[in-house]
Amino acid sequence: METKRDFIYTDWILTENQFNPEELHARETIFTIGNGYLGTRGSFEESYPRTLSATFIHGVYDDVPVVYTELANCPDWLPLVVMIDGDRFRLDQGKILEYNRKLDLHQGILSRFLRWRSPTGKTIDISFERFASLADHHVLGQRCQLTTLDFHGFIEIQASINGYPENKGFNHWEGLDQGKIDKGFWLHSRTRYSRIDLGMAAKMTISGIETAMQVNTAPGYPSISATFFSEPQQTITIEKIVTVFTSRDVEQPVSAAQTKLDHLPDYITLRNANEQAWAEVWEKSDITIEGDNTAAFAIRYNIFQLLIACHRDDNRVSIPAKTLSGFGYHGHIFWDTEIFILPFFTFTQPGLARNLLSYRYHTLDGARRKAIHYGYQGAMYAWESAVTGDEVTPRWSLPSDYYAEDVRIWCRDREIHISAVIAYAVWYYWQVTGDNEWLRDYGAEIILDTAIFWHSRVEFNPQAERYEIRNVIGADEYHELVHNNAFTNRLVQWHLEKACIVDDWLRCNFPEKARELEKKLQLTDEIRNHWLEIINKIWIPYNPETGLIEQCEGFFQLDDINLADYEPRQKSMQAILGIEGTNKRQVLKQPDVLMLLYLMRVSTESPYSLKSLQVNWDYYAPRTDITYGSSLGPAIHAILASDLGQTQEAYERFMQAAMVDLTDKRGNTNDGIHGASAGGIWQAVVFGFGGIQFTDNQPVANPHLPPGWTRLKFKLYWHGKWHEFDLRPTSLPPQVPNIQGIIFDLDGVLTDTAEYHYQAWQRLADEEGIPFNRQANEALRGISRRASLMLIIGDRRYSEVQIQEMMERKNDYYVELIQRITPKDLLPGAVSLLDDLRQAGLKIALGSASKNARVVVEKLGIIDKLDAIADGYSVQKPKPAPDLFLFAAQQLGLPATQCVVFEDAAAGIDAALAAGMWAVGMGPPERVGTAHIVLPSLAGVTWENLQGKFRDIALQRKP
Amino acid sequence: METKRDFIYTDWILTENQFNPEELHARETIFTIGNGYLGTRGSFEESYPRTLSATFIHGVYDDVPVVYTELANCPDWLPLVVMIDGDRFRLDQGKILEYNRKLDLHQGILSRFLRWRSPTGKTIDISFERFASLADHHVLGQRCQLTTLDFHGFIEIQASINGYPENKGFNHWEGLDQGKIDKGFWLHSRTRYSRIDLGMAAKMTISGIETAMQVNTAPGYPSISATFFSEPQQTITIEKIVTVFTSRDVEQPVSAAQTKLDHLPDYITLRNANEQAWAEVWEKSDITIEGDNTAAFAIRYNIFQLLIACHRDDNRVSIPAKTLSGFGYHGHIFWDTEIFILPFFTFTQPGLARNLLSYRYHTLDGARRKAIHYGYQGAMYAWESAVTGDEVTPRWSLPSDYYAEDVRIWCRDREIHISAVIAYAVWYYWQVTGDNEWLRDYGAEIILDTAIFWHSRVEFNPQAERYEIRNVIGADEYHELVHNNAFTNRLVQWHLEKACIVDDWLRCNFPEKARELEKKLQLTDEIRNHWLEIINKIWIPYNPETGLIEQCEGFFQLDDINLADYEPRQKSMQAILGIEGTNKRQVLKQPDVLMLLYLMRVSTESPYSLKSLQVNWDYYAPRTDITYGSSLGPAIHAILASDLGQTQEAYERFMQAAMVDLTDKRGNTNDGIHGASAGGIWQAVVFGFGGIQFTDNQPVANPHLPPGWTRLKFKLYWHGKWHEFDLRPTSLPPQVPNIQGIIFDLDGVLTDTAEYHYQAWQRLADEEGIPFNRQANEALRGISRRASLMLIIGDRRYSEVQIQEMMERKNDYYVELIQRITPKDLLPGAVSLLDDLRQAGLKIALGSASKNARVVVEKLGIIDKLDAIADGYSVQKPKPAPDLFLFAAQQLGLPATQCVVFEDAAAGIDAALAAGMWAVGMGPPERVGTAHIVLPSLAGVTWENLQGKFRDIALQRKP
Repeated sequence: METKRDFIYTDWILTENQFNPEELHARETIFTIGNGYLGTRGSFEESYPRTLSATFIHGVYDDVPVVYTELANCPDWLPLVVMIDGDRFRLDQGKILEYNRKLDLHQGILSRFLRWRSPTGKTIDISFERFASLADHHVLGQRCQLTTLDFHGFIEIQASINGYPENKGFNHWEGLDQGKIDKGFWLHSRTRYSRIDLGMAAKMTISGIETAMQVNTAPGYPSISATFFSEPQQTITIEKIVTVFTSRDVEQPVSAAQTKLDHLPDYITLRNANEQAWAEVWEKSDITIEGDNTAAFAIRYNIFQLLIACHRDDNRVSIPAKTLSGFGYHGHIFWDTEIFILPFFTFTQPGLARNLLSYRYHTLDGARRKAIHYGYQGAMYAWESAVTGDEVTPRWSLPSDYYAEDVRIWCRDREIHISAVIAYAVWYYWQVTGDNEWLRDYGAEIILDTAIFWHSRVEFNPQAERYEIRNVIGADEYHELVHNNAFTNRLVQWHLEKACIVDDWLRCNFPEKARELEKKLQLTDEIRNHWLEIINKIWIPYNPETGLIEQCEGFFQLDDINLADYEPRQKSMQAILGIEGTNKRQVLKQPDVLMLLYLMRVSTESPYSLKSLQVNWDYYAPRTDITYGSSLGPAIHAILASDLGQTQEAYERFMQAAMVDLTDKRGNTNDGIHGASAGGIWQAVVFGFGGIQFTDNQPVANPHLPPGWTRLKFKLYWHGKWHEFDLRPTSLPPQVPNIQGIIFDLDGVLTDTAEYHYQAWQRLADEEGIPFNRQANEALRGISRRASLMLIIGDRRYSEVQIQEMMERKNDYYVELIQRITPKDLLPGAVSLLDDLRQAGLKIALGSASKNARVVVEKLGIIDKLDAIADGYSVQKPKPAPDLFLFAAQQLGLPATQCVVFEDAAAGIDAALAAGMWAVGMGPPERVGTAHIVLPSLAGVTWENLQGKFRDIALQRKP
Repeated sequence: METKRDFIYTDWILTENQFNPEELHARETIFTIGNGYLGTRGSFEESYPRTLSATFIHGVYDDVPVVYTELANCPDWLPLVVMIDGDRFRLDQGKILEYNRKLDLHQGILSRFLRWRSPTGKTIDISFERFASLADHHVLGQRCQLTTLDFHGFIEIQASINGYPENKGFNHWEGLDQGKIDKGFWLHSRTRYSRIDLGMAAKMTISGIETAMQVNTAPGYPSISATFFSEPQQTITIEKIVTVFTSRDVEQPVSAAQTKLDHLPDYITLRNANEQAWAEVWEKSDITIEGDNTAAFAIRYNIFQLLIACHRDDNRVSIPAKTLSGFGYHGHIFWDTEIFILPFFTFTQPGLARNLLSYRYHTLDGARRKAIHYGYQGAMYAWESAVTGDEVTPRWSLPSDYYAEDVRIWCRDREIHISAVIAYAVWYYWQVTGDNEWLRDYGAEIILDTAIFWHSRVEFNPQAERYEIRNVIGADEYHELVHNNAFTNRLVQWHLEKACIVDDWLRCNFPEKARELEKKLQLTDEIRNHWLEIINKIWIPYNPETGLIEQCEGFFQLDDINLADYEPRQKSMQAILGIEGTNKRQVLKQPDVLMLLYLMRVSTESPYSLKSLQVNWDYYAPRTDITYGSSLGPAIHAILASDLGQTQEAYERFMQAAMVDLTDKRGNTNDGIHGASAGGIWQAVVFGFGGIQFTDNQPVANPHLPPGWTRLKFKLYWHGKWHEFDLRPTSLPPQVPNIQGIIFDLDGVLTDTAEYHYQAWQRLADEEGIPFNRQANEALRGISRRASLMLIIGDRRYSEVQIQEMMERKNDYYVELIQRITPKDLLPGAVSLLDDLRQAGLKIALGSASKNARVVVEKLGIIDKLDAIADGYSVQKPKPAPDLFLFAAQQLGLPATQCVVFEDAAAGIDAALAAGMWAVGMGPPERVGTAHIVLPSLAGVTWENLQGKFRDIALQRKP
């Protein structure tokens, strides 16, 4: 049990042990409850001056000036007034003798206990509880128990629905009608502009005393009240049950609410059903942390926020940036959902993830309208999205000062990476779930129509002979008008790469659907070829000297900054320097290049490598306003710092994100929960500290738990199966590696086939009449077959079918050539090392991405010296993904930590390290310097001297 | 009694005899009541779906996005629910058997009678009435009488205050507290941002039956209710009295409301006091029209709207454009108040006019902040003003369409004539009331500091050697960016002329105050000299060929338009052509040049003359969107058309303005009463049809009543006295004029002193060393002494003191020269005509603006032939004001219609016509062609041939 300020965190329960009027609004956010259908902020039943009470129902938006539309605060089901001999129970009068408020995450119940003395000296115990049923999301329960302690007196109870809710003053509702029912009432309201009908019904029961009830229907404020005379030590229980429906759910929401109310069981039965539903959800989605109570509670608290914000049935809504817990961002939906929040659902509640992504499918028409408005083709997603998918980012930040200048907000026009980011989310949903049906019916259309948007959006720069994307805002919003943002350009390239694959996949597997989409989207071969051309020629600002990626064109020419000069500070760098001030300095609001590396990390795609991560981290992390910039940053920094072995930094960033709302670190928790941060810390725990990576067959953990964590336990649903992880700290004392297996890359390590590749390409080029020679061949080193071909054909036009054919033809020639290989082609020292290792009892595997590897080792005459072969058929993901080596280790029956990889390529070293293996780099340190050991060749290498080197390194480097 | 749609207009009562749900919002506006402290829209006690109920209290503004601040709709004191055996009385259910609603203007009471049958067939008579007491503006009364007709049953009454009022959805109030009192309750609310506290208290009494009452305090919606069993034909009376105070009135508004409520007499006594107060107000402000019931009611209706909108005690508030009757323009204050509304108060409730102008004094600091913001000096009034006087015109009209462009509203930046217009209003308030104290303490500072603003705002154009005002919007808002708008430039010139006079007046009469202001405003001699230079050199776009004033630089080069081509239409030309479309065409939203002529008409100052009016009317009236442009136009057109003898046009425009709200002519009565139009039609009746003009001694009527009007009766308070007018139509049949008196101009008619003036100027110029000669003298013809001097000195710098001295010196020389005049200087025919007229028994007067006239006629030897002399000492206002001739007629004891004026100058002819006299022009028709008769000279003229000419003309020209 640990105390932070006045909070107590236990496993599942947040306890507030004193009333904090000065933190009223933040606490209302923190004590939000919900069930995915609606969220209700933690305001008091008896109200309090300047309360920001709110209930938001998914999809219930209404028009509002400047920001176009917002989630309408719905009629308030909480009001419950208690009068004690004429004194209204209220926290700003009388005396609070005891107070605690508890949010039970496991049961989804908010409760409060008070001992209160009225201004006239009468003492009473009052306890409240409430829940929004997860078992039936149209049902809300509220209970109040009163025990008079030291007086006889009249008590009056008045339970109401307040039909005048407000969005910071604005009431979106027209009261249409209301009426009385047995022991209750109903209310019928309608949103002012969007014309959504809302029906609510409520009833009250009182036990512990005999009393009559009266229904009062003040227009818009129906109430049921009872007055009774209470004796000391008498306990009275008031239960209020409310039902709610909208015309988004049913035709007749008022009668639905009444009918539902009529057929409900009693309060306790409803509460039990709610608890049961919560238990089932937690069974899948819980994360257990031991050894760190604050973190243990915080991760559950953040997961709870995600769970109560996600609709269980409706695939036309998505999770707003501030969930359903506050007025911030008006219920608009950002990339926060797809990039930060979605993975939690994909891996623990995949049906809900599918719903969230389907929202983007249903809003494609809005994205198309936006594209047309801006003069483009395809689908251009809104930076801020609501019901229709049309762009609802406000154009202006309007000052209330009579003479201050209006500030134009440019995100709607320029923050265009959202379209690639949604494609990214679709792709990984598919990768993780294998949900082909959904991809066919929904996802493919998203990926392809946004790819068509890019086709119309990129610009060709004839001077530089490259594609560019100008006039954007990247992930980092401190720079409002940049060209060739690396994050955006690479994501667009990545998006188009995947669009080609999805397009091929669809045409191959569902030709009819492919034709339908082709027609609907007007997807032509010209567009497809343009995609390939863009993939090849889009510019990613990158400095090969330093390995640094430049955030955007000219970023390094901006004024540099030392953020330490501004410490201590309590506000963002933009607040300190102004909009223009940050625009012209090298200061970031949130990760941009690092965000790109994070997104590419899961599949270790370019430009991700441990080396590039290190270089770019060193540059960008110190220039990022991680404390008061965007709340999207810290969780991502936590993961990357963890990867880089910066344990302390990783934990600090993690806790910064995990506690952002519980301790109101940014002072804006009053606006609502930081949903992206909540999703980000789930990723930080699973992908960062848990070190989860995906081989072809399963997710594997490569944990690096923060100091103090003695256990980390969770489960993931992946490829149709649950995978449980129960991780403990890895052995802490320094230890000499227990190496039991060796994995050899083939090409460049055991032999060299570069000459044969050259000859094959040359023959193809000659046949096609394309100029090509040995010098041109140099540019192909370490480049994939498709990419090599693209470089050779340049801007000549070939269809995808022709390209496929040429790749096959070149391979045929290559296979033909390698038939000539003999044992003489083995590189020096290879055979003797292989023999030495076998003699020492080590197991040996080949780990080559080539599909011809088996043929080559046969010709080399070493196939008998190998215990296993991992080749181009073994896994799908290429190096630097660890898959191939993990597959090899599995074949050898060894854990990764007992294997050494011999590699000559940077991507191979990265793959070995990503797999958690020991790495020996063959070649110059500038290429393979991140390996544990670097050797010029295998000549003269023995098992004994290798062992010695590993022993030395291990004893030095372990902490 | 006349019916328009479903309205019946009787003398004082507006009756609506059926319920029109489709006109709900317009009718809510039309049936607004108020007492100058607050206004309450005519919404129903039982409410109705989508009602726009509202109570606005003067000065209770609160912040709101985009438009900065608005009058906050205050808690609604009207809710009164009647339940009949469980059925709520409501107009959208059951059956309305009888319905009428009456607004009694004379008593300030709104009442309604209904016979209603409930859905279950129970019939009841219900009558409501309400008033906002004019006797005590914190008191509101409401009564409901019920008579059950055909049933026995339970009736439940519930009277409430709704603490959730809304400004189109936005609730400006925080509910602070509420509580019960004997037979009633109280409510304490506070505006969200401006922190104005509001206290209300209410009590209910029921007579006609015995019943208990219950107070229910649903948060923000306190109610008092009673249930009783009623027998057929039983009548029950419910009276609800409400008190209201704000923290603008008292320190403790809640206790003030409760204390006031405690001490109030019964309902009938309160109602009687209200009626008495209204009778007193009407005694002063009523206008009686006979022969035209609709007009008779409409003028009173419009006066009622002005009376209920004007605070009686508070000089820090003013009347919003939509009064206190609707949400339009957010309670902002425009020039509508000073130019259109103010004259009604100045002439019938001058104390209230003083309050309204003092509001502008109290908001000077805001105007100064605006000037600083725009980089100017002095006080630059806000186009839209609220509490502080800071500019609150919204910058943007924000579309709700996701992709539509925002429309920039330029009025805050460019519609700068407001500052001159306020000076104009101050000047005429002073002219009419002679309120020197107020001018000294308040008005002078307004006039001078705005004049300092102009000093900093005008631009000197060195090429054209003139001052210009570029980048403005004139009175006509269809042209958003113009240069040298004639209306603006001339008003600025006029403003500076009056600023010089007020400055002199203050320094002469209140030197200490003058020094104080001089210091406070940093008013230097340099600024004063600059004023004179601007007066002399500001450009008024004017075409001397045609007499036309060009609305702005280049206006005549815009595309011309024929508005008839667009008929029939139901929307404004801007709605048809778009903003750019009207910008580039010669189409006006409202009078601009004609508005200038109207403003200059009251003192017949340049460029006003009947001739210029005719020319400019012919040009601009057909190009003005008088039907759907601005509602400010029709009343002004009515007056000018009346002046020009276009009786039918005048009456049509008048009725268009008078009925704008009663018949919702523009379809926007729902937004509130058109306050400027209401004030404009008062001016149309008094100055247009009543033909009121001001001589030095009294207002005189020169009526031209519309056809059918048999009587027009009103009174005006002028120079500290009431002046009553009881006007009848002038004799209608053609009639030979009954001429009894002749008034001769002196110079150019009886003699010619031009040579002496030339010699005097020449001597002065020689002494000052300024080049001057006989040719230069030609430019001085018909120009005042000051203006002549200014032309002579050109851009040489002289102080005002030096200028005064030079004018006196020149006059001394002139007086010296005219000592040489003898009878030989009489022009040919003068003596014989004088003798002929005397012989015929006619009375003869001199009517000359010269202060030396008496000397000249003595020297000419004709002083004995004159019965009266009106000279430069007789009146203040120069020709073309009619004052001098009216003075002469008065001296002769003759009505204007029996007098003939002989004149040689255009301004003199205009003055004669303005006086309602017959005019004989001496000289070329291009100069004096508007006279009834034009003669080359007096040679050979006899009374007999003159008489013949008048007879011919009269018989021809009379209709």
